[in-house]
Amino acid sequence: MKLSIIVIGDEILIGQVTDTNSGFISRSLGPLGWETVRVVTVADKADDIRCAIDLCMADSELVITTGGLGPTKDDITKTELCKIFGGTMVFDKEVAENIREVFAIRQLQMNPLTEAQAMVPSSCKVIQNRLGTAPIMWFERADGHVLIAMPGVPFETEGMMIRAVAGEISSHFSPKVYIGHKVVMITGITESALAQKLDKFESELPSAIHLAYLPTPGLIRLRLDATGTEGDGTDIKLSEAYERLCQETAPYIIYKGDGNAAEIALSAVRSLGLHLASAESCTGGNIAHSITSIAGCSDVYAGSVVSYANSVKTNVLGVDRELIERHGAVSREVVTAMAEGVARLMNVECAVATSGIAGPDGGSAEKPVGTVWTAVVTPNGTEAFVKRYPGNRSRVIERASTEALLALAKALKND
Amino acid sequence: MKLSIIVIGDEILIGQVTDTNSGFISRSLGPLGWETVRVVTVADKADDIRCAIDLCMADSELVITTGGLGPTKDDITKTELCKIFGGTMVFDKEVAENIREVFAIRQLQMNPLTEAQAMVPSSCKVIQNRLGTAPIMWFERADGHVLIAMPGVPFETEGMMIRAVAGEISSHFSPKVYIGHKVVMITGITESALAQKLDKFESELPSAIHLAYLPTPGLIRLRLDATGTEGDGTDIKLSEAYERLCQETAPYIIYKGDGNAAEIALSAVRSLGLHLASAESCTGGNIAHSITSIAGCSDVYAGSVVSYANSVKTNVLGVDRELIERHGAVSREVVTAMAEGVARLMNVECAVATSGIAGPDGGSAEKPVGTVWTAVVTPNGTEAFVKRYPGNRSRVIERASTEALLALAKALKND
Repeated sequence: MKLSIIVIGDEILIGQVTDTNSGFISRSLGPLGWETVRVVTVADKADDIRCAIDLCMADSELVITTGGLGPTKDDITKTELCKIFGGTMVFDKEVAENIREVFAIRQLQMNPLTEAQAMVPSSCKVIQNRLGTAPIMWFERADGHVLIAMPGVPFETEGMMIRAVAGEISSHFSPKVYIGHKVVMITGITESALAQKLDKFESELPSAIHLAYLPTPGLIRLRLDATGTEGDGTDIKLSEAYERLCQETAPYIIYKGDGNAAEIALSAVRSLGLHLASAESCTGGNIAHSITSIAGCSDVYAGSVVSYANSVKTNVLGVDRELIERHGAVSREVVTAMAEGVARLMNVECAVATSGIAGPDGGSAEKPVGTVWTAVVTPNGTEAFVKRYPGNRSRVIERASTEALLALAKALKND
Repeated sequence: MKLSIIVIGDEILIGQVTDTNSGFISRSLGPLGWETVRVVTVADKADDIRCAIDLCMADSELVITTGGLGPTKDDITKTELCKIFGGTMVFDKEVAENIREVFAIRQLQMNPLTEAQAMVPSSCKVIQNRLGTAPIMWFERADGHVLIAMPGVPFETEGMMIRAVAGEISSHFSPKVYIGHKVVMITGITESALAQKLDKFESELPSAIHLAYLPTPGLIRLRLDATGTEGDGTDIKLSEAYERLCQETAPYIIYKGDGNAAEIALSAVRSLGLHLASAESCTGGNIAHSITSIAGCSDVYAGSVVSYANSVKTNVLGVDRELIERHGAVSREVVTAMAEGVARLMNVECAVATSGIAGPDGGSAEKPVGTVWTAVVTPNGTEAFVKRYPGNRSRVIERASTEALLALAKALKND
């Protein structure tokens, strides 16, 4: 069944905020048989909202809107929905009660604008938003197509999708469609070389199964998508195709399943019962942040020293001042001393360290912007390498973090 | 003039990757007079791509597509564009030369699939993509509406937009429209209370100027948008409205201009000629990462200790083991000792520290998930506070980082 998502909000259109709700909704409803056919982002303007709704309701059994439901004047979605689906704006006592409770939990004062949020179109069924003050509204058209209006705050949309909305959708439509995905993570080969290698495999895939490449810097995600009806054996075909895909790409597989570099590294360290620390200069805490974003990492991860200043490298990590003077902070010698220093300091068996020039300034002819030394400590010893990453500051930071974590995973894999 | 953006890619639609290209394009072209009227995301399917192009070309003088230009079989945009705009696919020698150069810089081998990228529709003008292998294509329709096909890799789209595409658009259309934005950052008041306070101000705004609220956890961005024609005085009206807005919100202003919490904190520390370090438990390096994402932070920021394990708190930061045993790691005493410890260790005047329970596990009745102690050290002394943040792990980490950085900015503002 077809799903369209409409993202409403000037702040998204002008690029001040990045929409993450549509991706979350797709990921939540895909496994329930919903194929997202389009995402449309429009301004908080009546005509644009109406035009997007008309377009999406025409071919999609389910349309979900996010945003445009706040208490401020620039949010006009609710009254527009009332015009489209009919009825009048009515005061909903349960919504008002919910708003009062949400405010009480947050220890905030009510005011007339928040009271106004309890007005809803009489043509909708309300799903109480336990995580915020904007009610979630369910509209149904004569042809059975449904529109659900959800809030724009990602925390509320994500939480309420999991708590209530996905369940309501599932029980209303009871889909019989089967949609499956399987992912393998690849490193050490370019996308086009990989595509050439998999050309025959891809052309021999059953028509229900499709291969997609998702290259990110340093890591390629290969995804098999399958679409069928429940019980027609598409799930078995998917498993068979996945097995063959893993055989074809064996030398380049860093992880079977979907995961980012931090998840892959953490899983490699954990599976050997080891512990990890990091020492970061140019990556500036991004390695620590990506690891600690994973719930439950504390059994493996001790911590990090972000040694932005050279004095921190010497005083905290114990790097010999002379090493820095002789070789520079961006060198094999210093990054190795950083990795070994933090492993000693935090009493762990594994460590990664980075030292480089993230830019835009600080580069030289010998060590241009993007030059990053990385060191990896495992029970097998220490290794270090230098690479030059292309792109702007955030890209260099991201890439250097990914490469350090993947190098650790590879070093442990070779054990 | 109207701009529509079409994002092409299954991986975006199913929510595996978050689109950031459309926001970047909007931010780049907004100041040149382009109003983004919609963003449409569609799959790598011929019908869907054609339908989106028809929709957008109808009302937008400029349509930019991103994605769908890779060398793999799932990317079909180029041939579809050839069908829509006419002509045949031809081999372009300059594109082939560019691809060879890009591969040489990256020290990679060419293969037949990369050669295929040099085929382009004869109906387009090519803008050489110096950052990748997919050529950028410029199509023009009889009515003057233009479509530009750009690659999907953000690094390439962003880089080429800055280097060439924005300039080509500007010289082709030479817009006379004036579009301006002004932003002020607000903290310490809820969105609805602020809206009530600004009700009169908003209703008295000239018709060319519009106020938008952009609440993020802990920080509200207030943005004035102005639209007019060059030389009609809209820019002066915008400056006047901004001045009044700043008067109305004076007690809650943390920063005049657009900036995130890290930029605001860094600017506050730098303006006083001070230096900063951080000690992070529950925020796990996110404070360090958000500060070091800002180019040129090294004159102010020394570094961070991510003390995820308690042993790191005692051995590296010098927190008394007894304090942790008596009060727990999540306590006023420990977070204060962490902040003072890292300030001493890194020899700086300012420090922030966090210790809390990011979840989903580890909470208790007394200290539920979301409880975070924060300490701030400035030349005026040390202060600490506890808050409970709602939401999932990433939301708690994000919010705790923001609050710590804003608390530092406030503590320095009061100096």
